[in-house]
Amino acid sequence: MKKAKQKEQPVILITNDDSIAAPGIKALVEAVQDLGRIVVVAPDKPQSGMGHAITIGQPLRLHKVHFIDGIEAYTCNGTPVDCVKLAVDKVLHGKPDICLSGINHGANHSISVIYSGTMSAAMEASIESIPSAGFSLLNPSMEADFEPAKQYVRQVAEKLLQKKVDKHLLLNVNIPAIDGSLIKGIKICRQAYAKYEEDFVERRDPHGKKYYWLTGDFVNLDKGKDTDVWALDNNYVSVVPVQFDLTNYTLKQQLETNWKF
Amino acid sequence: MKKAKQKEQPVILITNDDSIAAPGIKALVEAVQDLGRIVVVAPDKPQSGMGHAITIGQPLRLHKVHFIDGIEAYTCNGTPVDCVKLAVDKVLHGKPDICLSGINHGANHSISVIYSGTMSAAMEASIESIPSAGFSLLNPSMEADFEPAKQYVRQVAEKLLQKKVDKHLLLNVNIPAIDGSLIKGIKICRQAYAKYEEDFVERRDPHGKKYYWLTGDFVNLDKGKDTDVWALDNNYVSVVPVQFDLTNYTLKQQLETNWKF
Repeated sequence: MKKAKQKEQPVILITNDDSIAAPGIKALVEAVQDLGRIVVVAPDKPQSGMGHAITIGQPLRLHKVHFIDGIEAYTCNGTPVDCVKLAVDKVLHGKPDICLSGINHGANHSISVIYSGTMSAAMEASIESIPSAGFSLLNPSMEADFEPAKQYVRQVAEKLLQKKVDKHLLLNVNIPAIDGSLIKGIKICRQAYAKYEEDFVERRDPHGKKYYWLTGDFVNLDKGKDTDVWALDNNYVSVVPVQFDLTNYTLKQQLETNWKF
Repeated sequence: MKKAKQKEQPVILITNDDSIAAPGIKALVEAVQDLGRIVVVAPDKPQSGMGHAITIGQPLRLHKVHFIDGIEAYTCNGTPVDCVKLAVDKVLHGKPDICLSGINHGANHSISVIYSGTMSAAMEASIESIPSAGFSLLNPSMEADFEPAKQYVRQVAEKLLQKKVDKHLLLNVNIPAIDGSLIKGIKICRQAYAKYEEDFVERRDPHGKKYYWLTGDFVNLDKGKDTDVWALDNNYVSVVPVQFDLTNYTLKQQLETNWKF
């Protein structure tokens, strides 16, 4: 009779961009805490819109904090990407089995994948050969109800923990902010070509000098029914597999043929 | 006889991530200034490693500054991506014909495309349907010699100004930091799977508390001869066409087939 190999508990690194104080990261931990050893390394302040920023010119700090009983947790004064880098190098001293980021307070579908600190943290893990996913709820409020989202987070996490997933697997998961009974399920999608049309609000300070606040309207320029925006509009949880090879191979071929230098 | 249509001067938006004070942006302007109307909107301080970060929680400022005689120039207190957004909305009040970013002091090949403020600025333009390119010289020094780079910057800018380029065309151009006579020409490449292996330097402050500085060694995990890293190692200027659709279509198909929720 073969000797059963001792099954070790998988290590699950959890981070976000809304900071350790955001209810979304608590909901994420609650959704998966019995699936492995959870280690949280999250920003000490909100880092929304930080994209893939890293901290070069400043030193970073790590602080062990109380988060949820029985969960090892740290805050970092850097960006979401810094959190993942520091977690691997100075907290875990090695790679976790998977990395989960979120649950973000607000959508990260379509072009937002590029601006999102939540998704950039997950992408950093993917670059490091750690299967990962970023989760976002389509409600930016700090009072958002994360309960319906939890079962989908858990389903995706269980898939990531399967032994045979691609080591660079990276999923952008968005969850409609509706009653759980109305969610139709999970749909694998492509990233919609939908974006924000900027409109800076111009104001003047008490000294008469202009300053600007970034605002914008969301515009969907993509009529496809295979996109994340379509899925969310139709009450599905959208799952987009994301890659960090940004090469445009179609254009590469065209330029090789048509451009003579 | 047909009446020749009045040819309008193209508008070229120029930005970077090393700030308006960096020699690299001056070299970029010098390389292309007779090709159109140049407008510079650049960060007022270094913004390397800012990736696609945007400023959400702070107001932005624009200041008209003297840069090079005859060149309209502004500084912005935000990120490189903020510079492009503000330039389009509040300086140009419309889209430029092309956007050029750089010349960066230091390489932005392989995975660096994701962390680079230089490339993120160019990508922001591409999202806005403005053909664009980011330029980087493989020498991080402020005393780097940008002269040999200029002719390649100009060649690429001239290609971008052709009428028939894809409106989302986005090029990541890296230039070897060698004598111009040794550069073999321009090569269209794919992004190498090469990255930095993090190694945080741990120190203690005067109060005994730990802090960390991000450092790392560059490691090329990609043996292909069609990559940007290979081209640069072999004295070519590398040009990688870059896209902002991050969908991994291969994995999408696999998940659609294999994952049942």
